[in-house]
Amino acid sequence: MRVTPRPVKIALAQIDTTVGAFEANAARMVDRAREAAEKGAELVLFPELALCGYPPKDFLELGEFVDRCRAALEELSTHAVFDRIAALVGFPERHRGPGAGLYNAVALLRGGQVAAIVRKSLLPTYDVFDEARYFDPAPESGPLVEVAGVRLGVSICEDLWNDKQFWKQPRYLRDPIEELAAKGAELIVNVSASPYALGKPEIRRRMVGAAARRHGLPVAMCNLVGGNDSLIFDGRSLLVRANGEVQREAAPFREDVLIDELAPRHTQPSNPEARTKGASIISDETAETPAGALAVVAAYETDLSDANCRDLADALTLGIRDYMLKTGFRSAVLGLSGGIDSALTAVLAARALGPQNVTTIAMPSRYTASMSNEDAELLAKRLGVHFHTIALEPIFQAYLKALEPLFAGREPDVTEENLQARIRGTLLMAFSNKTGALLLTTGNKSELGTGFSTLYGDMAGGLAAIGDLSKTAVYALARWFNRQSATDLIPARILSRPPTAELREDQLDEDTLPPYAELDRVLRAHVEEHLGARRLIERGFAEDLVRRVLKLVVQSEYKRRQAAPVLRVTARAFGEGWRFPIAHGYRH
Amino acid sequence: MRVTPRPVKIALAQIDTTVGAFEANAARMVDRAREAAEKGAELVLFPELALCGYPPKDFLELGEFVDRCRAALEELSTHAVFDRIAALVGFPERHRGPGAGLYNAVALLRGGQVAAIVRKSLLPTYDVFDEARYFDPAPESGPLVEVAGVRLGVSICEDLWNDKQFWKQPRYLRDPIEELAAKGAELIVNVSASPYALGKPEIRRRMVGAAARRHGLPVAMCNLVGGNDSLIFDGRSLLVRANGEVQREAAPFREDVLIDELAPRHTQPSNPEARTKGASIISDETAETPAGALAVVAAYETDLSDANCRDLADALTLGIRDYMLKTGFRSAVLGLSGGIDSALTAVLAARALGPQNVTTIAMPSRYTASMSNEDAELLAKRLGVHFHTIALEPIFQAYLKALEPLFAGREPDVTEENLQARIRGTLLMAFSNKTGALLLTTGNKSELGTGFSTLYGDMAGGLAAIGDLSKTAVYALARWFNRQSATDLIPARILSRPPTAELREDQLDEDTLPPYAELDRVLRAHVEEHLGARRLIERGFAEDLVRRVLKLVVQSEYKRRQAAPVLRVTARAFGEGWRFPIAHGYRH
Repeated sequence: MRVTPRPVKIALAQIDTTVGAFEANAARMVDRAREAAEKGAELVLFPELALCGYPPKDFLELGEFVDRCRAALEELSTHAVFDRIAALVGFPERHRGPGAGLYNAVALLRGGQVAAIVRKSLLPTYDVFDEARYFDPAPESGPLVEVAGVRLGVSICEDLWNDKQFWKQPRYLRDPIEELAAKGAELIVNVSASPYALGKPEIRRRMVGAAARRHGLPVAMCNLVGGNDSLIFDGRSLLVRANGEVQREAAPFREDVLIDELAPRHTQPSNPEARTKGASIISDETAETPAGALAVVAAYETDLSDANCRDLADALTLGIRDYMLKTGFRSAVLGLSGGIDSALTAVLAARALGPQNVTTIAMPSRYTASMSNEDAELLAKRLGVHFHTIALEPIFQAYLKALEPLFAGREPDVTEENLQARIRGTLLMAFSNKTGALLLTTGNKSELGTGFSTLYGDMAGGLAAIGDLSKTAVYALARWFNRQSATDLIPARILSRPPTAELREDQLDEDTLPPYAELDRVLRAHVEEHLGARRLIERGFAEDLVRRVLKLVVQSEYKRRQAAPVLRVTARAFGEGWRFPIAHGYRH
Repeated sequence: MRVTPRPVKIALAQIDTTVGAFEANAARMVDRAREAAEKGAELVLFPELALCGYPPKDFLELGEFVDRCRAALEELSTHAVFDRIAALVGFPERHRGPGAGLYNAVALLRGGQVAAIVRKSLLPTYDVFDEARYFDPAPESGPLVEVAGVRLGVSICEDLWNDKQFWKQPRYLRDPIEELAAKGAELIVNVSASPYALGKPEIRRRMVGAAARRHGLPVAMCNLVGGNDSLIFDGRSLLVRANGEVQREAAPFREDVLIDELAPRHTQPSNPEARTKGASIISDETAETPAGALAVVAAYETDLSDANCRDLADALTLGIRDYMLKTGFRSAVLGLSGGIDSALTAVLAARALGPQNVTTIAMPSRYTASMSNEDAELLAKRLGVHFHTIALEPIFQAYLKALEPLFAGREPDVTEENLQARIRGTLLMAFSNKTGALLLTTGNKSELGTGFSTLYGDMAGGLAAIGDLSKTAVYALARWFNRQSATDLIPARILSRPPTAELREDQLDEDTLPPYAELDRVLRAHVEEHLGARRLIERGFAEDLVRRVLKLVVQSEYKRRQAAPVLRVTARAFGEGWRFPIAHGYRH
């Protein structure tokens, strides 16, 4: 008979990997493995696809990308540190079956070699995830891997996300954790790249806890940290006891190595009834489909609490910083209008890059109130960022004159409004081209959703820093920043003025859009929960409001298609996770 | 014993469906069914997902989109015409299994009801296709459906694309056609939405022929026709005899109803050896992966023959026209520079929309040669499109003056070049906003690939009409158009001048880019075949050329992310089928 296994000392090394930077990622893993070994850890986990970075996307279709990653893995496996500590390192593994495709795999490095390989069974192919595009599912879970006398059931991210009890019904045919438990796993290991969304960390804790409790198995989950294009990974790796309690959690939004002992499977048979209690937080309404599961995440978003605002601030700060670092930009520029959106973007940029690396430019027109300029300048001063003013009028006049012959006899309309926005976009891009600063767009999710923005105007830029924040969330986060500072960081008037684009006389956003409080609720249910008009009306939204908002969403699809990448902080952001046709005949 | 079945009279009704236009699509099907019934057809086929249009994309995640389509199907099924003729109508079918997802399904309408439902087994999830995002695979092929005494094996598009003999090895684990043959199918029916790419029609004929021959089964394939955002479907539905010969082919690039009798399975056992001959056109090198299979399509592209140029012209004409129709635009505008790209775009726009609906605008700067203006005006006159001229200089001066304080002491560089392009983009967008004309971008694939274009400048616009044509293909197609007209349609000087962006003194494209002949060959192998640097060098391209081109491709990813939708006419276009990260550390 087998001796009851003792606790294993595990290191969760949540590192910030860069896609395609095999050598840099490997070097980072060696450093962390060394650190973990020195502290007595017996096994170190790295995030999903740690060696090639996540998500590698179509690089996976270049044969030599996969080959080079494999070569880097073989080289890494011979490093002396892995004589002292076993490691699980994610990589894409080529197979020879039909399609000659890839597995999303993890290698056990030990004793100078790749001692075992485990493959992912469940491939997320929804929202921003396209894993079925690149990978084939593992035909079966396992094999179990023995480390320090404990049989580990190794799983990869989504493999852990199909607990039928937690989700109230299965999302996939297979449950890899059940399969590993049936094979005799004594501890579940999971290497993840689970992106941040508002409220998601709590879902993750409960979901992992529920699976642990149901199977009486502890779980060690190592999650990716860092920004990769639109996606922000929050880390928060978890050690969860067999009873479902969180034993330890790694830092949010930064690299961390969490080391602790985790006790393997309960030797006492656990009480099945106790196990099932509180196993699900999913309501019947939302658990119907995988999309329904996302709705659960969205449900948390109403909670713009201090803790959630801090998460948002930290997520966006990391997202901006990593985008700049990984694309090689050192400074940023943005237009400062005196409005709330650009104010918040400036605050985030200064926080991410240091104020000395941020330039703000005010570009007042004939419609700009003097208080807008004053507030913009005051904010720039408080933040310590560079500030310039460029007058729009002479350029605007030159355009109007050039267009006069073509526009003779036509009334001014949205054309002239867009023209001003595009002059601003062009000036900012000129500054970007001349100085090498990345232009940050300042549009929010309410604008992106309704098309209340100008393509090639205020939409011009390389990164939409707050493009996944509704106007409501923008205000909440701005107020949170002000509460963090002794005196208001963002001038109070910016927060108290009614929103205006200042593109014509006495313009207010609410002349064009429904009140943001209503708009944002409809948008959230439509975008994050994918509810159509009928379901929204059933939920209690006024029919005319619903039809008006959904019409705006449909009409502005072509704009979003050309928008800058949006830092994703909710269950669904515009961008890669939102794939609607432009040309169609659907009427909500 | 069963009587040898007689030939079935089949109608292939290739219609141009619109996504989400359930009623309009249904009405179109009723019309065609009536026409087919009057001509004595016993079965009418429509394209894949005909009732909801293809590709519906994330509309499939709105529960009520699926519900409304199902309701439309039930209503359609009761139409009296289906007492006279059976029909196969594609629709998304909700199922109750894990994930509560959808099948990509086809309904047999007959005698006032949905008489049978068949589901798709193989779900393309590569290039522009995301079917695994939306659908679950049918657990098994079939059931067989009997029409006019013949047992039909019904398949949906990709189900037919896994002939292991044709592709030299299986691309998927299952072969639905083999499964249907084993069940006793006497005739294979396939409802498709197979988009056009250069050379693809011939692949399709051979592939269908090979499958027919191998199983000794005739195939009736009905393909979609029309443009849907980036994708252009060419129709060319096929009736293929059991010996693999094409019996009839429907019209390319337009709606058509092809009606003919097709004889069911050979009653004589066929000679297996004869069947296998010529079964594959795939070389060993390219058949390794599904991506390799795409390479086969790409291999045809070098052939810019007259027939292929006609296909390109017809494809792009249809693509432009349908994009306009389905988004509600009635007129188009574009900038006419005197160069080849805008000339070809103008020719295509005039062909698609009628010259009276096309406006061209020349916007000369200080660097524009007078022959550019002359050639632009001459072309506009020959085409009969509207033509305007707007001088750039005063606006350019106004910008330079406004930026002077910020740019003091800095030399002119690419900033000033981009500025001119952005002024043009802004003027064109002003015209678009004021008149409701769709702005067509004029950039080609060589420019998009290398980033030799200005974001928010010449990249501004709603549709990239020639964005999937390399510069080489642009010239070939322009020459083809000139050969079609008695006198040159495109002024000869436009074709003979060396390419220049005219954004600075004496500028030539080849100052910045490798010669197009070399550039385009490297780009094609990289983009369409996904070959990395090592493979390209192995293929014989000079190493410095390869590194230079691939570096340009990587550096310009952020621009492509914000590009207008590109009409796809090759095996891989930039846009939805090209998903590379912007922020990464991969060095080719």
